[in-house]
Amino acid sequence: MNDQTIRIVLAGPRGKMGSEAVKMVAETKNFELIAAVDSRNNGKQLKDLEGVLPLEVPVYDDLEDCLIANECDVLIDLTTPETGRKHMEIAFRHGVRPVVGTTGFSDQDVTELSQIANEKRLGAVIAPNFAVGAVLMMKFSQMAAKYFQDVEIIEQHHDQKLDAPSGTAVKTAQMITQNRDEKHQGHPDEKETIQGVRGGSIEGIRIHSVRLPGLVAHQEVLFGGEGQTLTIRHDSINRASFMPGVKLAVETVMKLDTLVYGLENIID
Amino acid sequence: MNDQTIRIVLAGPRGKMGSEAVKMVAETKNFELIAAVDSRNNGKQLKDLEGVLPLEVPVYDDLEDCLIANECDVLIDLTTPETGRKHMEIAFRHGVRPVVGTTGFSDQDVTELSQIANEKRLGAVIAPNFAVGAVLMMKFSQMAAKYFQDVEIIEQHHDQKLDAPSGTAVKTAQMITQNRDEKHQGHPDEKETIQGVRGGSIEGIRIHSVRLPGLVAHQEVLFGGEGQTLTIRHDSINRASFMPGVKLAVETVMKLDTLVYGLENIID
Amino acid sequence: MNDQTIRIVLAGPRGKMGSEAVKMVAETKNFELIAAVDSRNNGKQLKDLEGVLPLEVPVYDDLEDCLIANECDVLIDLTTPETGRKHMEIAFRHGVRPVVGTTGFSDQDVTELSQIANEKRLGAVIAPNFAVGAVLMMKFSQMAAKYFQDVEIIEQHHDQKLDAPSGTAVKTAQMITQNRDEKHQGHPDEKETIQGVRGGSIEGIRIHSVRLPGLVAHQEVLFGGEGQTLTIRHDSINRASFMPGVKLAVETVMKLDTLVYGLENIID
Amino acid sequence: MNDQTIRIVLAGPRGKMGSEAVKMVAETKNFELIAAVDSRNNGKQLKDLEGVLPLEVPVYDDLEDCLIANECDVLIDLTTPETGRKHMEIAFRHGVRPVVGTTGFSDQDVTELSQIANEKRLGAVIAPNFAVGAVLMMKFSQMAAKYFQDVEIIEQHHDQKLDAPSGTAVKTAQMITQNRDEKHQGHPDEKETIQGVRGGSIEGIRIHSVRLPGLVAHQEVLFGGEGQTLTIRHDSINRASFMPGVKLAVETVMKLDTLVYGLENIID
Repeated sequence: MNDQTIRIVLAGPRGKMGSEAVKMVAETKNFELIAAVDSRNNGKQLKDLEGVLPLEVPVYDDLEDCLIANECDVLIDLTTPETGRKHMEIAFRHGVRPVVGTTGFSDQDVTELSQIANEKRLGAVIAPNFAVGAVLMMKFSQMAAKYFQDVEIIEQHHDQKLDAPSGTAVKTAQMITQNRDEKHQGHPDEKETIQGVRGGSIEGIRIHSVRLPGLVAHQEVLFGGEGQTLTIRHDSINRASFMPGVKLAVETVMKLDTLVYGLENIID
Repeated sequence: MNDQTIRIVLAGPRGKMGSEAVKMVAETKNFELIAAVDSRNNGKQLKDLEGVLPLEVPVYDDLEDCLIANECDVLIDLTTPETGRKHMEIAFRHGVRPVVGTTGFSDQDVTELSQIANEKRLGAVIAPNFAVGAVLMMKFSQMAAKYFQDVEIIEQHHDQKLDAPSGTAVKTAQMITQNRDEKHQGHPDEKETIQGVRGGSIEGIRIHSVRLPGLVAHQEVLFGGEGQTLTIRHDSINRASFMPGVKLAVETVMKLDTLVYGLENIID
Repeated sequence: MNDQTIRIVLAGPRGKMGSEAVKMVAETKNFELIAAVDSRNNGKQLKDLEGVLPLEVPVYDDLEDCLIANECDVLIDLTTPETGRKHMEIAFRHGVRPVVGTTGFSDQDVTELSQIANEKRLGAVIAPNFAVGAVLMMKFSQMAAKYFQDVEIIEQHHDQKLDAPSGTAVKTAQMITQNRDEKHQGHPDEKETIQGVRGGSIEGIRIHSVRLPGLVAHQEVLFGGEGQTLTIRHDSINRASFMPGVKLAVETVMKLDTLVYGLENIID
Repeated sequence: MNDQTIRIVLAGPRGKMGSEAVKMVAETKNFELIAAVDSRNNGKQLKDLEGVLPLEVPVYDDLEDCLIANECDVLIDLTTPETGRKHMEIAFRHGVRPVVGTTGFSDQDVTELSQIANEKRLGAVIAPNFAVGAVLMMKFSQMAAKYFQDVEIIEQHHDQKLDAPSGTAVKTAQMITQNRDEKHQGHPDEKETIQGVRGGSIEGIRIHSVRLPGLVAHQEVLFGGEGQTLTIRHDSINRASFMPGVKLAVETVMKLDTLVYGLENIID
């Protein structure tokens, strides 16, 4: 598989992630961009689209048409949850392995898509987060929790972010809880003299959200044991950081014959 | 003054700070430990006390008696607020400059003691915190606030600490407010999906308290501006860290003829 | 001065710093962009230039012509050392206060320009670094060195940077040496079993340069004393971080009647 | 096994690690301290030894005598490499599983001891480092290297440390090299204007050693990829931090029937 070219169709080439993915595919040996799917630009070429690498790659407004006209191995879908859902079914029908970046699928969506993948014996990857570094941070945190029961999470983002805590912080805490029992952190008689300073809690794991201009997307997971602390930190400053994860998913999906949810499950 | 020996009496030689101070005075050129004051060990020598450097220095149970019997320049008082209050008055009466480490004095105490110092034209230093590093962190934070209006404080302590936030965090926030207008940090429409994650607030400055085994006493002050962050951090792992501050206070008090409250006011 | 509009001419509007400065001036109340100087676009308007805010501001290829035609208070010069040098003299001749961002002036340049500023009683600011956060880091480091003699510098940059250490690291070390005596850091009998691990040295201050993809421009100054460390860190992720410094320089230069070299000397 | 008491003999109870281990065993449910081995205090009890928990546990000067007189499951050996070597053979002879903390064994030692363990079908653990946090840091670094080829190590210790870099830094680099090809970090045309600033190198991995008073034992492993960094950091402030590792080794050795070298190989 290593030496064979992987033929790729990419849906969503104009988005922030999509335009980075066009670049990544173009720059990767053994990857070949066969076609793109974009609802607005049927019949054009990628080079006609603004903000996208000027490639002579045909654009379709319909994935089905695209897959009838072109033989492909992998669909990279960076559109919306709704479109992504439909695209996965179409891809499976055509024997194409989907790699989909979305946080919007329900458990039922994933179960149903998983069944189709099993029937067709086709690999598929759905990833809410393609940042390999973030996924490693979560995975390592989960592993460390077996040895350190005390842990707090500090996530730091730019001050235009509306929600706190971040999805990554919540996901990290949830993964940690799989390896530790519920535990109230800190001294049992601890008192907050200013409300909120001890942060929010997911099963006793304290989460702190910092918001400042000049920050982008950062998270620190601190484990404490007697006489020592272990810190795992991820700093992300732009969307280019997602591309190694997309690339890894494309390479891995070719070797899979089931659906895998979460990049952490293809990383070892 | 630099070459003249400073003759010191130390009150509270058996305490954690006190026993470190005995060591510091003994090791400092130009400092001479003349006597110690300890309510329980009148007539003994320091070498008779457990956990204290074995020095042939006389111990008195009464400061007045001690100062009648010995000519001293500076009193280092590391006892309790009540005793410290009385000791300062006795010291002033004998022309001895007091250096007192306590967080327990009221504003009225300080005002009254200040008046006595002025009348006697005697220097005095009262310091709630002798950690030079912590005081510099607070001072720098106050200075930085003139240029960065957005700031959050993360303080981290061992999990046996009962109160949150730490006194240092509160003091830092108060010093910062002197150089910035009240400001609500973060996006105006920000929402906490888990209560408390955005921390506590002092005039809009967010404070986050982390408590973990393996930590001792740490604080990070994060300033954010467009495209940049400035971080000032202090880590303290034992009481030895207070001694340079005590030493500085002793050296400085000899040049003062008023009472100074707070180490930050003798640091430049 | 606070309420009066400051009329600005900007030289170098197409550069990376320049185009950010156009934006900053346009967005600042009391700042008015009167004209720009660009050797290649005489007679055009800023809106005709690529990558620059589309403003109806006239462009001149010659500063002298520009200042004859327009009444201005401040020249922001973000060109080259050679052009900046000439521009300063022209500005002084026309009673205009220059704010120049360059690392390229010799001591003699600065001395000569200083003399002209004195004669004309005109303020001027030359700044090798406009990042307020970086300048505060250097200033605080210099101050801290009075109390902590042991210090190491870790600077971290992207792996496309050719020279190590960074100019900021060298400048920081030089500023620290003004407040501490030369000192060999570490144990006198220290041995490197792998050459270079203890870093480079400026008067005994150890400097470590880290180069990795994913980094932008970061520096950490670590001070150590018994039982404590004090860390001052600056993280910069884009050129927008320089604009508050340019703005501060423009505001300050109006109150000056001499030349000031270095942003640290107008920050207090 | 979980509910059965593990009967322990401890060699080296007066050492820094040893006295902590006495405490740990005494405080652990299901662990029972049967006897101690100390060349100087034959016939005494632990309570007669200075700096050790005052327990009524018999002390022998010879392990063989001790194991003849007492039925034990595990030997914790915190002595010297020479003694540890002999003690392991004696332990194996008596069907006792050894847990040995030492960096001093040769490859041949380990091979020979491994053979005996295999013959006797007895578990054994030899660990150069019992700090679980440090071992996790190394393990995670090795895993991360599969996804991030660019990495630098910054280790920070107190300024009384004689050798640089630390053993942990070297070990970390070696473990990383197993998952990445040799690579020259940084720009190919990179130039050091001050010698040594780019640190030392193990197969292209840059190592930086910081030495300051106020530090204890810290290490940061920085991985960089486009747009992101991943940092794994361990801070250790005292020997208590080794005890969870010793405890884990004792629990695990009961389930083993071979010799395992390195705590990382019993951590999953």
